[in-house]
Amino acid sequence: MTTVAEAQQFILAHARSFGTESVPLAAALGRVLAQPVIADRDYPPFDRATMDGYAVQSADFQHNAEVSLRLLERIHAGDTGTQIVETGTCSKIMTGAPVPSGADAVVRVEDTQLEGDQVRFTMTSVRGGQNIARRGEDAHQNDLLLNDNLLITPQAASVLAVTGHADVVVARLPTVGIVSTGNEVIPLGAPVLPHQIRDSNAWALRGFFATCQITDVTATLAADDKAALRDTVAGLLEQKDIVVLSGGVSKGDADYVPEVLQSLGVRQVFHRVRIKPGGPLWFGVTAGGKAVFGLPGNPVSVQVAC
Amino acid sequence: MTTVAEAQQFILAHARSFGTESVPLAAALGRVLAQPVIADRDYPPFDRATMDGYAVQSADFQHNAEVSLRLLERIHAGDTGTQIVETGTCSKIMTGAPVPSGADAVVRVEDTQLEGDQVRFTMTSVRGGQNIARRGEDAHQNDLLLNDNLLITPQAASVLAVTGHADVVVARLPTVGIVSTGNEVIPLGAPVLPHQIRDSNAWALRGFFATCQITDVTATLAADDKAALRDTVAGLLEQKDIVVLSGGVSKGDADYVPEVLQSLGVRQVFHRVRIKPGGPLWFGVTAGGKAVFGLPGNPVSVQVAC
Repeated sequence: MTTVAEAQQFILAHARSFGTESVPLAAALGRVLAQPVIADRDYPPFDRATMDGYAVQSADFQHNAEVSLRLLERIHAGDTGTQIVETGTCSKIMTGAPVPSGADAVVRVEDTQLEGDQVRFTMTSVRGGQNIARRGEDAHQNDLLLNDNLLITPQAASVLAVTGHADVVVARLPTVGIVSTGNEVIPLGAPVLPHQIRDSNAWALRGFFATCQITDVTATLAADDKAALRDTVAGLLEQKDIVVLSGGVSKGDADYVPEVLQSLGVRQVFHRVRIKPGGPLWFGVTAGGKAVFGLPGNPVSVQVAC
Repeated sequence: MTTVAEAQQFILAHARSFGTESVPLAAALGRVLAQPVIADRDYPPFDRATMDGYAVQSADFQHNAEVSLRLLERIHAGDTGTQIVETGTCSKIMTGAPVPSGADAVVRVEDTQLEGDQVRFTMTSVRGGQNIARRGEDAHQNDLLLNDNLLITPQAASVLAVTGHADVVVARLPTVGIVSTGNEVIPLGAPVLPHQIRDSNAWALRGFFATCQITDVTATLAADDKAALRDTVAGLLEQKDIVVLSGGVSKGDADYVPEVLQSLGVRQVFHRVRIKPGGPLWFGVTAGGKAVFGLPGNPVSVQVAC
């Protein structure tokens, strides 16, 4: 009998792409990215101050003595400096602002005192590049930032946003038709007689698909009647990428599912897997590559097989 | 400084319910159940055959000899038997069908041969109750099946469906307002100048909330301007259950967030947590119990603090 590992291999061997589609970024979360994401520019896009402080020339601090520099201007995040920082001068700079021309270091505000237009530095050592995130330090323009075939996590969404992807190409999700078989099964919401049970398998299956963000799912009931079952499945095979049935796959008198599926041209790949419960699992594919799963009818068996 | 564990405790101490709402079962997946689920009847609701076979009296098999029994009728799933199984008789029964009166065991069809209206049994030992799932064996009417405050998994959805819950009372999810602060930050979709960066934090935050199914989220930008920031946050505090800001929580000249929040009556619970990056995290609550989070502006810091 087919083992679980073999069954999974058989199913994966018949897995196929359902194409791609472009969706707004807000709808792309949890979907699978179907395009590589390339840096549209350097990141950071400019030499950026990582502290509030003063942009200086580090050479002004090489004499190991206290230094005072003339303040040129204040540069906020979102501004650009208008003056070049030359020896003897500095510009106040806020976190996130571009470091002005001429400066090669930022001294944090805590190490300074402002006196009129002079800034007195209360430390003596300045390292070139300190407190600056260099342009291109995180990524260079045209670098690959995200591979395709990657799940779009919140972190990936952040990368997509910063690189300007208002729309994202993602893998299209399959559409699914669910069929719960059995004369005793009635739909949720209908009155239930003592010898009937409400359909629960469709809801477990909907739930499993929902965890993969697959929500284009229709669920129908089919009586234990070959012709009716055949009509129902034939209709779903036309409309849906995947069809999943529950019940009717064992060896009983009313277990028409394998026979009906094969009469519809669904080629059996395997029937029965070495799991318990869930053993009578049936899997097949159509000539067009649509996947059809016949799960047992018992609710626990359905969940295990699924 | 506040540790991460302490910060989590402070936040949880201010956590509150956002009420409950009734939603269709299809919309309840991944939500938190806010009602206990009680068995509306016994499960199984009747003595149910677990195999295709023959419903018999086990007493007919106590002589350790081969047995032939007269066939009364065929009972499919969804049917009820019309005849009582007495000694010397049996009824054919399909998996899922109710065991007819008089019978106390089901012999699987593989162990029988049908000859006219006589069924010959090719085994001799029958155990009372075999191949029958007894009424109430899984749960009795009025038993508690699901506690409230439980995440609605596919398995739970199956239980909700079988017990007839077309609509489910679930915990209402909070509404969220996100504010990305910083003059240098521009919205996704707008042209970006060299010294500007696109907002990515709102997208990371949207993503984190989406993983909790929280999708009633609006995101806005606010410049580094006290009055504008105050107006934006005041508006969100009226409309939303939770407000999350990114940026402006450090000690820089443009870090107005703590001051603005306190001026709006948001009481600081903590500011700064012993994590890196993400340390300047601010958390406070309004008198009405709304939660406000001030996250740092750096994208990695936001994700760590979140």
